[in-house]
Amino acid sequence: MEKDRLDPWGEGHISNYERLHQEFGIERLDSVLPRIKEPSAHMRRKIDFGHRDLGRVVDAVDSDKPFAVMSGIKPSGDFHLGTKMTADDMIYFQSLSKRATVYYCIADVEAYNDNGLTFAESSKTAVRNVADILALGLDPERAVVYKQSEEIRVMRLSTIFSSSVTNNMLRAIYGERQIGLYLSALIQVGDILMPQLPEFGGPKPVVVPVGADQDPHIRLARDIAAHYKEDYKFVPPSSIYHRLNRGLDGSPKMSKRNPGSSFSLEDAPAAAGKVVMSAFTGGRASVEEQKKLGGEAEKCPVYDLYLFHFALEDEYAKRVYDECYDGTRMCGDCKKELATLVKKYLEEHRKKRDSMMKDAEELLKSSKKRLAALAS
Amino acid sequence: MEKDRLDPWGEGHISNYERLHQEFGIERLDSVLPRIKEPSAHMRRKIDFGHRDLGRVVDAVDSDKPFAVMSGIKPSGDFHLGTKMTADDMIYFQSLSKRATVYYCIADVEAYNDNGLTFAESSKTAVRNVADILALGLDPERAVVYKQSEEIRVMRLSTIFSSSVTNNMLRAIYGERQIGLYLSALIQVGDILMPQLPEFGGPKPVVVPVGADQDPHIRLARDIAAHYKEDYKFVPPSSIYHRLNRGLDGSPKMSKRNPGSSFSLEDAPAAAGKVVMSAFTGGRASVEEQKKLGGEAEKCPVYDLYLFHFALEDEYAKRVYDECYDGTRMCGDCKKELATLVKKYLEEHRKKRDSMMKDAEELLKSSKKRLAALAS
Repeated sequence: MEKDRLDPWGEGHISNYERLHQEFGIERLDSVLPRIKEPSAHMRRKIDFGHRDLGRVVDAVDSDKPFAVMSGIKPSGDFHLGTKMTADDMIYFQSLSKRATVYYCIADVEAYNDNGLTFAESSKTAVRNVADILALGLDPERAVVYKQSEEIRVMRLSTIFSSSVTNNMLRAIYGERQIGLYLSALIQVGDILMPQLPEFGGPKPVVVPVGADQDPHIRLARDIAAHYKEDYKFVPPSSIYHRLNRGLDGSPKMSKRNPGSSFSLEDAPAAAGKVVMSAFTGGRASVEEQKKLGGEAEKCPVYDLYLFHFALEDEYAKRVYDECYDGTRMCGDCKKELATLVKKYLEEHRKKRDSMMKDAEELLKSSKKRLAALAS
Repeated sequence: MEKDRLDPWGEGHISNYERLHQEFGIERLDSVLPRIKEPSAHMRRKIDFGHRDLGRVVDAVDSDKPFAVMSGIKPSGDFHLGTKMTADDMIYFQSLSKRATVYYCIADVEAYNDNGLTFAESSKTAVRNVADILALGLDPERAVVYKQSEEIRVMRLSTIFSSSVTNNMLRAIYGERQIGLYLSALIQVGDILMPQLPEFGGPKPVVVPVGADQDPHIRLARDIAAHYKEDYKFVPPSSIYHRLNRGLDGSPKMSKRNPGSSFSLEDAPAAAGKVVMSAFTGGRASVEEQKKLGGEAEKCPVYDLYLFHFALEDEYAKRVYDECYDGTRMCGDCKKELATLVKKYLEEHRKKRDSMMKDAEELLKSSKKRLAALAS
């Protein structure tokens, strides 16, 4: 019995993202991919599946014009694999051009509101989180790191924007929510549009790499950019969307609240290895069946980990998929192989990260100084 | 025929404020007045008619403990008589104790949202407005002046508060409004509670002198102070309410949008004199009738001007009232007398104000420096 053969770099894995194209008008990445000279692993592997107006950023790269890469992280704990996805995308876009600047927002206001973390607590986590992204490859020379709670421009923009946004507009995008959530959305719009203020060199393309679930903020930011076109000359921000990491325990999404679903870059390698070893897989009911039918890699969060993070070479990820499909790779061995990879990665990352704590503090300090010195 | 004789220092003038006591629980000023050693002209004349928890501030004065006086002005133009009312109250409370600090907020974010003024435009007006309040008697040594758009603490607080305020709570206080108005209310709550942050010496009584129409913000601030009692140890802010200036053209309220209803401290004395001379009064249909029945000072915005602003001695204001009541003071003469007072006042104020422009700039600069230097 033949089942459909899925290309690991094909559309198959993202069929559940189809409605984002249909209903929300997210463009398929294919529409712009041929124009990108060196696509990232996320792009090649169709982990990045959609975008809005990414062409503007490609144009900026091609014509050596300045552009910004903007995203943020809530400093509510360790650097998780979902955060790494966004960080990898930011670093990739920064690497495309000497004229790219990364704006990296530490969302401590959200961490206070959502998780009850004081700014002092967030501040400590933030240093470690910044060291993580430096270890992943961020170039600090072209990065602006700021805390939401300290960046008056973001706050000011969100307040200004609030005066022109109607409740109906917000309800249409987010549904009926409490004001705190609406305001939090407006603050994120402030984050997204800040790089286009005059003190940062004025209007320019900005790409926001995010998980698909963050698209509402992008839509709001684009609506608002259009509304304030005259006052601020905003270029509508661009976005690129990556698929979400599925939970290792079979849940639909990795979650910090659900320890069996994931691990973080801070976890002890042995502990992370254990999480991998007890992961849900796309395997069959018995070894015999699996040898006969092959595994279902497209349903398998373990395969996702190879694909999204730990198989650095495309060829390697493809081999894992093919062996699984052919029934020559069994889940136990596959998990063991991954656990070894993960443990090695975490050990190396931890070393790199620890050696970068001073640089992280330095970057936070120098960014703060730089931001304070800008006219506002 | 005898009509009710109203005591100009009595309750008669504020009968339309009765529902504020009944429905909203604003306390009558009488409940605390006997404890105030040197009541202000506004208090003695019942222009200040109500309060919330003013006793806390009286206690602070009596026991020589620190307290704050907080209010703001939207820098959308000249210093009007309504603004002067609030300024007079702020200066009065500051004068009560060496331990009083005034927090004076320049609401440039609101000026942008409501009036489309850029921060640069607001900035110019702000200097003149600050010179006005200095000319009125503010002691710059114990005053913190800040722009809403530059004060990260206010923005941060409003964002934090937004996470715990429900839409129902806001609707109950303000009715169904757009998010921009709700956020603007939360920003004002941030203004009101900022003086109690640790960097300003921590929890303390704060009095907010405002027009009666601003009470919703006070209620919201008190609700929020109670909600964050554990995190911030906020003392519920106190308030004192003054009656609103009625429009000189007979409209219920002076308004910047309605030039015949008022004049500003910046107006040419001659022009202001003209506005006074064409004012609506509480006079009768004919001189004969007025001699017989007396005028109706309690309905007269011209009398209001004597009472609220230009009769510096209580005795003088009382004499104006009595002569009007007795039918010995005719409207034409009364307006001429007031116009002369107003012109003289404006001339003197302008001189004082002009001589204080440098001090105003200095105060803005030193406040900014001081605020930036505070830990946050």
